[in-house]
Amino acid sequence: MNPRFITLEGSEGAGKSTNLEILTQTLTAQGLEIYVTREPGGTELAEEIRQLILAPRVEKVTALTEVLLMFAARAQHLEEVIKPRLDAGQIVVCDRFVDASYAYQGHGRGLGVEIIQALDDWVVGDCQPGLTIYLDLPPEVGAQRIANRAKDRVEMEQQVFFETVRQGYLERLKTNERMQLVDATKSLEEVAAQVEHITQAYVATL
Amino acid sequence: MNPRFITLEGSEGAGKSTNLEILTQTLTAQGLEIYVTREPGGTELAEEIRQLILAPRVEKVTALTEVLLMFAARAQHLEEVIKPRLDAGQIVVCDRFVDASYAYQGHGRGLGVEIIQALDDWVVGDCQPGLTIYLDLPPEVGAQRIANRAKDRVEMEQQVFFETVRQGYLERLKTNERMQLVDATKSLEEVAAQVEHITQAYVATL
Repeated sequence: MNPRFITLEGSEGAGKSTNLEILTQTLTAQGLEIYVTREPGGTELAEEIRQLILAPRVEKVTALTEVLLMFAARAQHLEEVIKPRLDAGQIVVCDRFVDASYAYQGHGRGLGVEIIQALDDWVVGDCQPGLTIYLDLPPEVGAQRIANRAKDRVEMEQQVFFETVRQGYLERLKTNERMQLVDATKSLEEVAAQVEHITQAYVATL
Repeated sequence: MNPRFITLEGSEGAGKSTNLEILTQTLTAQGLEIYVTREPGGTELAEEIRQLILAPRVEKVTALTEVLLMFAARAQHLEEVIKPRLDAGQIVVCDRFVDASYAYQGHGRGLGVEIIQALDDWVVGDCQPGLTIYLDLPPEVGAQRIANRAKDRVEMEQQVFFETVRQGYLERLKTNERMQLVDATKSLEEVAAQVEHITQAYVATL
């Protein structure tokens, strides 16, 4: 575990972009040097892999292909960006990380936990985040909020897929103390206030 | 194992293209319906992954990234192309397959056998080839033969890397009866004759 590594997770329409701003502003206001990145992506090669994953395509992408691409990008991101920044003493904030693989591929695609856990051990190992804020939202609420947005290959899935993804996140919360749930059905102001509060409380422990 | 699945492996400069021709001609001459494909690649997405793997780049590609990309492409290739063709009764001939991951990433990149074996179990499972012809050549001989060829990211490696890759193939041969070694230092005619002989003998058992 690396305490300076913070991740943000959330369903589609849960307000991840807005709250990534709140999170980084709160850290910066504390005088901390931060580096913000995202997954899949974060390096030139990892961003190229991201495009392969998210591009809508006729060819059906198998669940194994999807998860292996995700972890290929993650391996590159960790070695080239995340670990060097953490080693240099920076706080790294990542928009989605390994919990998303458990939720989307493990649960959503039905691959199960075992394969994801093995990949997690090989690729992430002890470079686990110290804090993960999960913005929780029922998929039907999220779907309404992003109805007018252009969707990538994963976002085009049916609601039942996102129900399963949500169950995956809730499952992760049970066994990972570093994960904190924020109820994203509340008003923008209330959600932002809670993200700020969690962040400040966490920074005080560093 | 699927007896109608045949793979060809070989070091750089070992005459893989020429002998892929010999192999397919021998099968076709027996009146067999064959489908020829290659790895990494074989589907639209898998060929896009191939380009990411082989493109020379400034960013250092980690060994884990490389092997996960290889198996991502393989998962796609198996589900979309190899299995449906085998199920339809065709003979599938693949230019490089899973043995290359043991040799290049397991040995060459030093990842070890355990990770490759786990990926092999998940991705390939029981769809292993029935026959694999391995064209064996000392790397220094191969290097001379391809000296004037444009090289991809992997081919640009140093000779010590290819020594280790060769050891990986020879290691695989010890425990995989389906693999047959052809000494590629011999003349083009002798090598071709041996590939033809092995193929004919194998087809007789189908």
